[in-house]
Amino acid sequence: MIKVILFGGGNVATHLANEFLQNKEIKLIQMYNRNISKIKHFKSKTLITNNLENILDADIYIISISDNAVADFSSKLILKNKLVVHTSGTISLNELKSISNKGVFYPLQTFSKNKKLQFDNIPICIEAEHEKDLILLKKLANYITKEYYHLNSEQRESLHIAAVFVNNFINHLYHIGHTICNEANIPFNILKPLIKETASKITTLNPIDAQTGPAVRKDTKTIHKHLEKLSNINQEIYTLLSNSIKNTHGEKL
Amino acid sequence: MIKVILFGGGNVATHLANEFLQNKEIKLIQMYNRNISKIKHFKSKTLITNNLENILDADIYIISISDNAVADFSSKLILKNKLVVHTSGTISLNELKSISNKGVFYPLQTFSKNKKLQFDNIPICIEAEHEKDLILLKKLANYITKEYYHLNSEQRESLHIAAVFVNNFINHLYHIGHTICNEANIPFNILKPLIKETASKITTLNPIDAQTGPAVRKDTKTIHKHLEKLSNINQEIYTLLSNSIKNTHGEKL
Repeated sequence: MIKVILFGGGNVATHLANEFLQNKEIKLIQMYNRNISKIKHFKSKTLITNNLENILDADIYIISISDNAVADFSSKLILKNKLVVHTSGTISLNELKSISNKGVFYPLQTFSKNKKLQFDNIPICIEAEHEKDLILLKKLANYITKEYYHLNSEQRESLHIAAVFVNNFINHLYHIGHTICNEANIPFNILKPLIKETASKITTLNPIDAQTGPAVRKDTKTIHKHLEKLSNINQEIYTLLSNSIKNTHGEKL
Repeated sequence: MIKVILFGGGNVATHLANEFLQNKEIKLIQMYNRNISKIKHFKSKTLITNNLENILDADIYIISISDNAVADFSSKLILKNKLVVHTSGTISLNELKSISNKGVFYPLQTFSKNKKLQFDNIPICIEAEHEKDLILLKKLANYITKEYYHLNSEQRESLHIAAVFVNNFINHLYHIGHTICNEANIPFNILKPLIKETASKITTLNPIDAQTGPAVRKDTKTIHKHLEKLSNINQEIYTLLSNSIKNTHGEKL
């Protein structure tokens, strides 16, 4: 049984809290948030507080707040010989300023308030200053997921950049597709099987081998036709990504 | 029973041929390809030819060859009062130069040689000059899929552009993610649950409501950190897509 305290009330904190609460090997003994109303729905399930002086004794203290606030917030924590971790993909272990042992517990997934997630498929990236803390984080990760990875801060930053490409940017391209369909009076649903297949293809093929379309075919006629119909930033995106595909597949610009 | 002849030997033609051959309501009576060796594996299943003078009598003649070749190839077909269609998303109905009735039968999916597909989830976009031909194409579509859409050439072109964004460009972003992982010595598999969830999210949310990440949070600190680690065209792509997300979500540049 691992005793955990969570700091935060946002998407990641909420998903983690719900996951911990339903896990028999983990005991979420307390949640903290500066604005207590944001975590009041956990009142019936765990202790809640907005006062750092009331923090109890636990095995792991998890800071799950916005990236920009981690350094400042953690500097208020004096938890000598205890393990304090953050859940961010972007910031390094050293940005934790708590008086404590330090680590990272970063679940790589896109969290939205109203979308339920199965944690057992979410990779968790862990890091710690001390071997014994790494063992503890592995144990915590193992209780909630099948996959965990031991990455250093440098690797985690690269991973986070890759995640921006394959999640944030891809979702934005879905949005552009949605807009183009709307303007042409076509239901967005028509694209959904293609979107699903595109994501499914790379479970068995390397992305580079799955590439199709006018840019990789060097079909300049189609590219020009498409560019004529686009304007502003969508035209710039079309040009840049087509050039990048051509570069990747070996045509000089 | 609809009698069909297919012209072509590429990915789309091969997938369509296999689908027609296993369907009881459709009879693929002949396949044509200029280079007969490309379709010789169909020899045991249907008639094959590389001679246009040998073309049999059918209900629908389907041209499934590269976009650039359709106008030229179709100009050789004299099939008066018969229905000739192409399978392209890019080119208009009028680019068919056959002496015949004309139509379009465009399956919206990404076809790779070594990846099997279930046609029943593939949307098929149809168009025809004459009402009776439209009815025939609806019938053909209905035999192989649950979803078909009647789109005009203008709409189909928009749809094809949207498909380039949500398929070709997205696959390229997968490739960039793959490269970043490789360089940091991280297995690409770590990104797959995120990729799956990103595609799954928009089955229940509009893409604009599913947007997460540093650009929509206006987290310029993280954006700058990421840009420092990127170079060349990946840096340009990161900048342009982040700006586009900021534009969409209402921040002036």
